[in-house]
Amino acid sequence: MATQKLEKVFRDPVHNYIPVNNQTIYDLIATKEFQRLRRIKQLGTSSYTFHGAEHSRFTHCLGVYHIAKQITEMFTKNYPETWSADENLVTQCAALLHDVGHGAFSHTFESIFDTDHEAITVAIITESSTEVNAVLRKVSPDFPEKVASVITHDYGNQQVVQLISSQIDCDRMDYLLRDSYYTGATYGEFDLTRIMRVITPITDGIAFKIQGMHAVEDYIVSRYQMYMQVYFHPASRAMEVLLHQLLKRAKLLYPLQKDYFCMTSPRLVPFFENDFSLSDYLNLDDGVMTTYFQNWQSHPDEILSDLATSFVTRKLAKSIKYDCADKKDLDVLRDIIAKVGFDTDYYTAIHSNFDLPYDLYRPELKSPRTQIEIMQKDGTLTELSELSSLVKSLTGTSHGDNRFYFPRELLKSDTLFKAEQEAFTSYIKNDHFLGKGTK
Amino acid sequence: MATQKLEKVFRDPVHNYIPVNNQTIYDLIATKEFQRLRRIKQLGTSSYTFHGAEHSRFTHCLGVYHIAKQITEMFTKNYPETWSADENLVTQCAALLHDVGHGAFSHTFESIFDTDHEAITVAIITESSTEVNAVLRKVSPDFPEKVASVITHDYGNQQVVQLISSQIDCDRMDYLLRDSYYTGATYGEFDLTRIMRVITPITDGIAFKIQGMHAVEDYIVSRYQMYMQVYFHPASRAMEVLLHQLLKRAKLLYPLQKDYFCMTSPRLVPFFENDFSLSDYLNLDDGVMTTYFQNWQSHPDEILSDLATSFVTRKLAKSIKYDCADKKDLDVLRDIIAKVGFDTDYYTAIHSNFDLPYDLYRPELKSPRTQIEIMQKDGTLTELSELSSLVKSLTGTSHGDNRFYFPRELLKSDTLFKAEQEAFTSYIKNDHFLGKGTK
Amino acid sequence: MATQKLEKVFRDPVHNYIPVNNQTIYDLIATKEFQRLRRIKQLGTSSYTFHGAEHSRFTHCLGVYHIAKQITEMFTKNYPETWSADENLVTQCAALLHDVGHGAFSHTFESIFDTDHEAITVAIITESSTEVNAVLRKVSPDFPEKVASVITHDYGNQQVVQLISSQIDCDRMDYLLRDSYYTGATYGEFDLTRIMRVITPITDGIAFKIQGMHAVEDYIVSRYQMYMQVYFHPASRAMEVLLHQLLKRAKLLYPLQKDYFCMTSPRLVPFFENDFSLSDYLNLDDGVMTTYFQNWQSHPDEILSDLATSFVTRKLAKSIKYDCADKKDLDVLRDIIAKVGFDTDYYTAIHSNFDLPYDLYRPELKSPRTQIEIMQKDGTLTELSELSSLVKSLTGTSHGDNRFYFPRELLKSDTLFKAEQEAFTSYIKNDHFLGKGTK
Amino acid sequence: MATQKLEKVFRDPVHNYIPVNNQTIYDLIATKEFQRLRRIKQLGTSSYTFHGAEHSRFTHCLGVYHIAKQITEMFTKNYPETWSADENLVTQCAALLHDVGHGAFSHTFESIFDTDHEAITVAIITESSTEVNAVLRKVSPDFPEKVASVITHDYGNQQVVQLISSQIDCDRMDYLLRDSYYTGATYGEFDLTRIMRVITPITDGIAFKIQGMHAVEDYIVSRYQMYMQVYFHPASRAMEVLLHQLLKRAKLLYPLQKDYFCMTSPRLVPFFENDFSLSDYLNLDDGVMTTYFQNWQSHPDEILSDLATSFVTRKLAKSIKYDCADKKDLDVLRDIIAKVGFDTDYYTAIHSNFDLPYDLYRPELKSPRTQIEIMQKDGTLTELSELSSLVKSLTGTSHGDNRFYFPRELLKSDTLFKAEQEAFTSYIKNDHFLGKGTK
Repeated sequence: MATQKLEKVFRDPVHNYIPVNNQTIYDLIATKEFQRLRRIKQLGTSSYTFHGAEHSRFTHCLGVYHIAKQITEMFTKNYPETWSADENLVTQCAALLHDVGHGAFSHTFESIFDTDHEAITVAIITESSTEVNAVLRKVSPDFPEKVASVITHDYGNQQVVQLISSQIDCDRMDYLLRDSYYTGATYGEFDLTRIMRVITPITDGIAFKIQGMHAVEDYIVSRYQMYMQVYFHPASRAMEVLLHQLLKRAKLLYPLQKDYFCMTSPRLVPFFENDFSLSDYLNLDDGVMTTYFQNWQSHPDEILSDLATSFVTRKLAKSIKYDCADKKDLDVLRDIIAKVGFDTDYYTAIHSNFDLPYDLYRPELKSPRTQIEIMQKDGTLTELSELSSLVKSLTGTSHGDNRFYFPRELLKSDTLFKAEQEAFTSYIKNDHFLGKGTK
Repeated sequence: MATQKLEKVFRDPVHNYIPVNNQTIYDLIATKEFQRLRRIKQLGTSSYTFHGAEHSRFTHCLGVYHIAKQITEMFTKNYPETWSADENLVTQCAALLHDVGHGAFSHTFESIFDTDHEAITVAIITESSTEVNAVLRKVSPDFPEKVASVITHDYGNQQVVQLISSQIDCDRMDYLLRDSYYTGATYGEFDLTRIMRVITPITDGIAFKIQGMHAVEDYIVSRYQMYMQVYFHPASRAMEVLLHQLLKRAKLLYPLQKDYFCMTSPRLVPFFENDFSLSDYLNLDDGVMTTYFQNWQSHPDEILSDLATSFVTRKLAKSIKYDCADKKDLDVLRDIIAKVGFDTDYYTAIHSNFDLPYDLYRPELKSPRTQIEIMQKDGTLTELSELSSLVKSLTGTSHGDNRFYFPRELLKSDTLFKAEQEAFTSYIKNDHFLGKGTK
Repeated sequence: MATQKLEKVFRDPVHNYIPVNNQTIYDLIATKEFQRLRRIKQLGTSSYTFHGAEHSRFTHCLGVYHIAKQITEMFTKNYPETWSADENLVTQCAALLHDVGHGAFSHTFESIFDTDHEAITVAIITESSTEVNAVLRKVSPDFPEKVASVITHDYGNQQVVQLISSQIDCDRMDYLLRDSYYTGATYGEFDLTRIMRVITPITDGIAFKIQGMHAVEDYIVSRYQMYMQVYFHPASRAMEVLLHQLLKRAKLLYPLQKDYFCMTSPRLVPFFENDFSLSDYLNLDDGVMTTYFQNWQSHPDEILSDLATSFVTRKLAKSIKYDCADKKDLDVLRDIIAKVGFDTDYYTAIHSNFDLPYDLYRPELKSPRTQIEIMQKDGTLTELSELSSLVKSLTGTSHGDNRFYFPRELLKSDTLFKAEQEAFTSYIKNDHFLGKGTK
Repeated sequence: MATQKLEKVFRDPVHNYIPVNNQTIYDLIATKEFQRLRRIKQLGTSSYTFHGAEHSRFTHCLGVYHIAKQITEMFTKNYPETWSADENLVTQCAALLHDVGHGAFSHTFESIFDTDHEAITVAIITESSTEVNAVLRKVSPDFPEKVASVITHDYGNQQVVQLISSQIDCDRMDYLLRDSYYTGATYGEFDLTRIMRVITPITDGIAFKIQGMHAVEDYIVSRYQMYMQVYFHPASRAMEVLLHQLLKRAKLLYPLQKDYFCMTSPRLVPFFENDFSLSDYLNLDDGVMTTYFQNWQSHPDEILSDLATSFVTRKLAKSIKYDCADKKDLDVLRDIIAKVGFDTDYYTAIHSNFDLPYDLYRPELKSPRTQIEIMQKDGTLTELSELSSLVKSLTGTSHGDNRFYFPRELLKSDTLFKAEQEAFTSYIKNDHFLGKGTK
């Protein structure tokens, strides 16, 4: 067997082939911290709504790397005066690792246990205990810090930072295409090839040549559509709500029943105790969490076991939209729900999801966004929304909704609580809470 | 909110939309036994090779149902004299449930613990303790038995049996398309629409009109290609081998360390004890198993912990092909491997994978295959391979290979055991074992 | 050979299979007037820009029919109280025939010879001399008039009219998907399947259920993108400009050289004479016209032969955008062009293309648009732009540009007229005319 | 306007984007000889069967160029020792121009007028009168001859020759994918990306690394499927038969009616006279020919006008298959047809289509094929069919059929000639001629 130049190829349904021919990248993929991403779904609870979307963060991270690799190689070839080839590896490593700190059901988990996946990403990259850090250190002693600083936006070269994190970056470009592919919701598709043809390094960031303006515009619209149709889907949020209630209940019960939770869910204990290490964090994944929820199905606490069972077997709450102004009136619904016998702390919830599809650079904000710059033929830059009325219509305005979740039993027509159900539904029209006034 | 006729739609990337408008089907999907399929990957260890292929058996079963529904509805409309509409529901239920007894890593699990997923499918359908059985019983008291008899091929109407299980059935048609979509290996694609246009019920089975002969031929070729390229991929089989060794080691250790295994892997205990119920079986899934393997990583037994770690972090053995005649000579390799310090019982393995892409009906066999019949314009039937030289070339011949797995360390060039490695590689040419004679 | 129920299937790359099982439809397709559509490109001069887009109006018309058929069959099945099955055939015939009066390079041809493809469509349907009319008459004596009245929007049932012609009709849905497929510009894709699931007949038209609102929104955006990127492409318009100049020149020369034109382009003579019959019109197609242009390449008139050659060999003029306010200043450019030796009547042109992507119903207009209605769960209707900020941003505003075309020689750097070229380009910045003021 | 490096991009639905950044290639595309390919359909009469397949030879030639460019650039980068970068331009030019001599309906035209499109390709490249030749001469005086010698297989470097013309070359790879895309017959798809990853220059040709063996195998199967399903479709051949009869009749009439043909079809006259120049040949295209056929529709000769009308309006003959041994018996059918009143010289025909999907190198043949070589890991070569039983089944055996065409009136059941029709159909079973013996 002759020795061969390293070239490992990953067959990817979104990008067809992802070749890897750099030893550092190859070794990073082989680390246990990166392999762990195979066990964490990219879209969390969305796969309970879009059953096809069971893809992991592992696949997404490979995809982000692949886009970053192609762009940096194109920059190296076509823009040697504006882009330094020395940035290629740091960009590619940051692309590959940008989500390595994500955990199981990150959003909900973070809100209950006060973790922060970005801080953990940085820790995985910079702490000497990890395999990821060991691989990066081989490049140079300060390389881990460099990669981490890209993640935290502190890296000196804004070109690199913007490729990894901006309103149109390698991360978003991969996840829109990938989530679109796996959900089957074609709204997320856009012309990646064209965007990769017109992306250009400029002195302090990146820009897009005007020939690709409509492709960029289409990308913004695709992003908006995916948020509206997929990421904010009411059924997925019902699963998130359920998960939140379940972990909240477990956290409440833990101090009284430490032995039980040590037996049935040992790896969660450091989080119940609010005293966890990086290694504790890395011990969790979707499978572990779901295994524990299955264990909890037989717990004597009725609320815990019921919520656990609902999660494991996908019994979802129903929801209606409400206007901000009517939020104060929701108690009228909670009262009915309580009357029927549900603990409204665990069986109702409000859940708001809003996204700002695009915005200008607003220096007065805490985290101002980098606006998208379009490069005219003579090199002058124009901000995207000045050229696109579509984008302008989405600029600076958040889109989404507020939802009130409640037990599906309230909508059934064949139960004992006919009067309460009728009272309840009298407040609803077209899936919308009428409020007290408008009713 | 007006009551509406039931119509639930599943967005599916393979079939676009899967509408469900039958209450029985809808209720079956909602059972805990069916929801459990979300936690079992369709392709087992293949997702470690084709990272995109993380789809579950849940998605596949929905797809098989969808194909069966379309075909039975078309039969009802176009062939009222040959096909009875009374068969629609039993066919669709059997399609939906045909894999409901599959477990985590079925193949390997069955070989270690002597389970049988088909028998379990039947049990889930017929035992009164399951939610699936309760839903089916609502149709009629004998309905569960009818559905089960389709699975076991004992159902009276061969049309139904062949739609669910034959050389070109709804099951295979969905999984080829689906596995193709998720792996990104386009070889599995074929013209499902055309096949669904030409499929025809005949007195004692199904046939395909001659206008679709090439689509059927293409399906057979796709099936062959998927086996060669995806299902038999050496890397996926390395993961299977690893899993096999790991469970074998655990089973060996169990009698001596019952407490340990009760603590770290309680749901496997009934299987170690060889005394398990249906409920025990349904308690297992990919996430549970992998959680246990993670637990075992810290077991003091070096072999168990090492194999567990290799599985969790995807450290694969290497392999070479060997010819049957040379199998006896493999000891020469095992000896070298032992010399370097590996326990060959756990660090070498042989793994053979063969598939017979298509065959004629051979009544002398124990399980003769139903051959594919092509219907001429005047109604006469001709067996497929008589019309297609492509299919003829694949008829009656198994395709696959025998592989010998060994530690990847044997191929590294930078280690202490240079002499042994050279001895080892001298027996290999083009990934093939030379045997003693041909060397 | 047994007689079989009629079922002809057309393999279509956009809709996969288009089955035809109605004798009237089948016979209409076989008429010489419909077959003639094979010889007329759907996108006229666009195939000179998007080389893949060489598809004919024949394919588009089949596609429109197919969409109309699916919708009317779904209406018949699901909405028997709102939709009458008697409307199916008239809808499908109108869908199939809606473009049968289109001619070669319709737009330009109509502006030079004052023809009207819609009037001709009506004539083909209603005049007794055509094969189309003969087929339709077989249905019933007044059937041709009924079909024609759908085309002219006079048909009594607005449901039918809106399916064929409204802001979201079968025509537009097919051409966006088809033109997208053939150009390769994926911007035109939208979720036809979902739209066909939510389209609903209402008393006096059609509406779309709210579950499909985002699919309708996406359709509007796709439409906008296709206009901006494909239909208004400057290079295609350069070909249109060229064609216009060419026919203008021929028309000018005709009275002086009748014999020449009778010999080289006999089928255009009735149009030069402004005395043509329906049969004359049907004698023209893309191939005939291009054959004539090839003949004209050797005409002694330098302008005619040069324009003909430019058309046949695709030598395109260049263009710049200008603002309305600067239109009066364009003479400064024309003067330079004349100085260099070009006849500005034939070698410069202005070309404006604007589209109104969506609009509300505005009864004060001559041809008010039918607005798109979204149906809430309780049956109330809401106009689309009230629900979609994306659509709102496109409502009531035209998009497009004004362009000034001129000989490409003006931009070459290697010619004799250096001073004039420099003067010329000094008025241009980023492909935009600066005007006298802003320069 | 800043001068920019040349980069023209063609949007292509098959290859997405085809960038052109070489001035010679760009200039070749702009020549009148190459632009003429826009007016010649790639699949000739097939678009009358597969209505979507109206793409021109222009699009195909661009696609072949694109594949050749990618392969030669990859060779230059990865195999500097085996492949000389000096071959890139000659390979790319040959790829672009390989079909430039094709004419309208080449096959039939060549059989009637004894032309040879390959010889004409060579003439266009090497004769000093053409624009193509002028562009090529700018590279170097002997460059046209070099390019031409690739077309004729005489070029010294077999690597280049095989890329352009062998059993797996850039030409075939583009047309299978393209014809598949435009017909909608997905059978033609194969994994081009993978083949382009494993293609390798060897000393005297090209080979494919073993990792891509199944992709090559799949390509061979796709090729076979496209021949069986698309290229040999009986309806397309009916159009070819019709065209053949039509031109045969015109050629027969010409000597008697020279004036008529000079008026109605002047550009065919040099061919009727069998005295044509290259320029005469280049004056023909699909549109010109069809324009002439339309003219002939009103010729007083009933056969000519009837055949012309049938062609223009797609009135097809029917056909049945026959076995070689029964060919002698076909007169029995011709006799019946004559009895009914048809001139069997013009209203019946036999048409045979056979393809040899793959073959070994057979030096004893006049034009031996270059066999496909698979490269093992250690560099040894193995002929493809030794590794693939699928390919072996297709090796050395021709596939196709013999068909007898006859007027569709013979199958109608509602005419005057009932007895003759019954006699006729008694010889047919399942679209197959029974012969005298088997009847």
